Amino acid sequence: MKLSARNQLPGKVKHIDTGMVTAEVVIALDGGGEITSVITKKAVENLGLTVGKKVYAVVKSTEVMVAVD
Amino acid sequence: MKLSARNQLPGKVKHIDTGMVTAEVVIALDGGGEITSVITKKAVENLGLTVGKKVYAVVKSTEVMVAVD
Amino acid sequence: MKLSARNQLPGKVKHIDTGMVTAEVVIALDGGGEITSVITKKAVENLGLTVGKKVYAVVKSTEVMVAVD
Amino acid sequence: MKLSARNQLPGKVKHIDTGMVTAEVVIALDGGGEITSVITKKAVENLGLTVGKKVYAVVKSTEVMVAVD
Amino acid sequence: MKLSARNQLPGKVKHIDTGMVTAEVVIALDGGGEITSVITKKAVENLGLTVGKKVYAVVKSTEVMVAVD
Amino acid sequence: MKLSARNQLPGKVKHIDTGMVTAEVVIALDGGGEITSVITKKAVENLGLTVGKKVYAVVKSTEVMVAVD
Repeated sequence: MKLSARNQLPGKVKHIDTGMVTAEVVIALDGGGEITSVITKKAVENLGLTVGKKVYAVVKSTEVMVAVD
Repeated sequence: MKLSARNQLPGKVKHIDTGMVTAEVVIALDGGGEITSVITKKAVENLGLTVGKKVYAVVKSTEVMVAVD
Repeated sequence: MKLSARNQLPGKVKHIDTGMVTAEVVIALDGGGEITSVITKKAVENLGLTVGKKVYAVVKSTEVMVAVD
Repeated sequence: MKLSARNQLPGKVKHIDTGMVTAEVVIALDGGGEITSVITKKAVENLGLTVGKKVYAVVKSTEVMVAVD
Repeated sequence: MKLSARNQLPGKVKHIDTGMVTAEVVIALDGGGEITSVITKKAVENLGLTVGKKVYAVVKSTEVMVAVD
Repeated sequence: MKLSARNQLPGKVKHIDTGMVTAEVVIALDGGGEITSVITKKAVENLGLTVGKKVYAVVKSTEVMVAVD
């Protein structure tokens, strides 16, 4: 499947915190730094996410803001 | 200003494409790779964005999806 | 690629309206009804979207609201 | 109330999973297929959502991605 | 129609800037201050938005960030 | 830090409801009315949010819908 979302950053799952409905997934990016994702607990199960697994952090462009110091 | 959005990736503006209402800003991340943002044309002007400027790509965690191969 | 976004509705592209930065893509869902997407013009080009092409409308669960009459 | 969000798909609540802050609402679409929504627990209460209730899944166009096989 | 989105702030349309696909709608809030919305040009037409019209700015809670000085 | 998000409404934290992963933060706006935010529990901790604290509700323009009666 090829997706319109233009931001697909490769990394590895570093940490998963699971709640009742949602889960927080911290991804260590291959390029350095981390990105945090909040998805449903069921999505974590569907994808079989575990610490160390290779993943992509995917973000639609309209969801990305820009900041300057 | 300190923001709740937990993803703030440093980089430099690589390219700006300006439309009538929105603009597409491509950011070369310091860690490698690129991230594309769509913000309003007025936000580009307010921030004084130009190619080469140091910026952060900022994303709320609930906007980040996870994908696996 | 398998994605955490749990809403992936099959359909066909019915109409594309292209602006300078963004494009509006109307998808006729296989189950009936339509769904409208706004993505970047470049994403339309990257995916090779044309009228009649089979696609999926993909939505992250946290972006779906519920309404009652 | 008439809303700018152009995607308003009719269906019935199939399942509700309630957490401490958020809840996951699965909607069986009238046209077939399902759509999953994550909203606050309080919104579930405010709308009086229960299994079987007629609802609309509402999505802003800028939140809809497109995928191809 | 009653909507799960818990933020519905009353105001009046102050300005509309129309592009090819999207439009920027600036709303003067009844409580003071402004809020800017980017919706599709067709949504502006569907709602019959004009300067001075009474409207609500509607935002899903998961889209609201918090900042501190 | 200066942010592209054009909606930054001042207020005070009125209530915080904390779940396992997310938290709901209700902000009493200085201009009157309330706005509800769902952010991660860790963001609440990082910002040191407590009832009464002065904050801004921050929303990207593409996340704001418009409704009419």
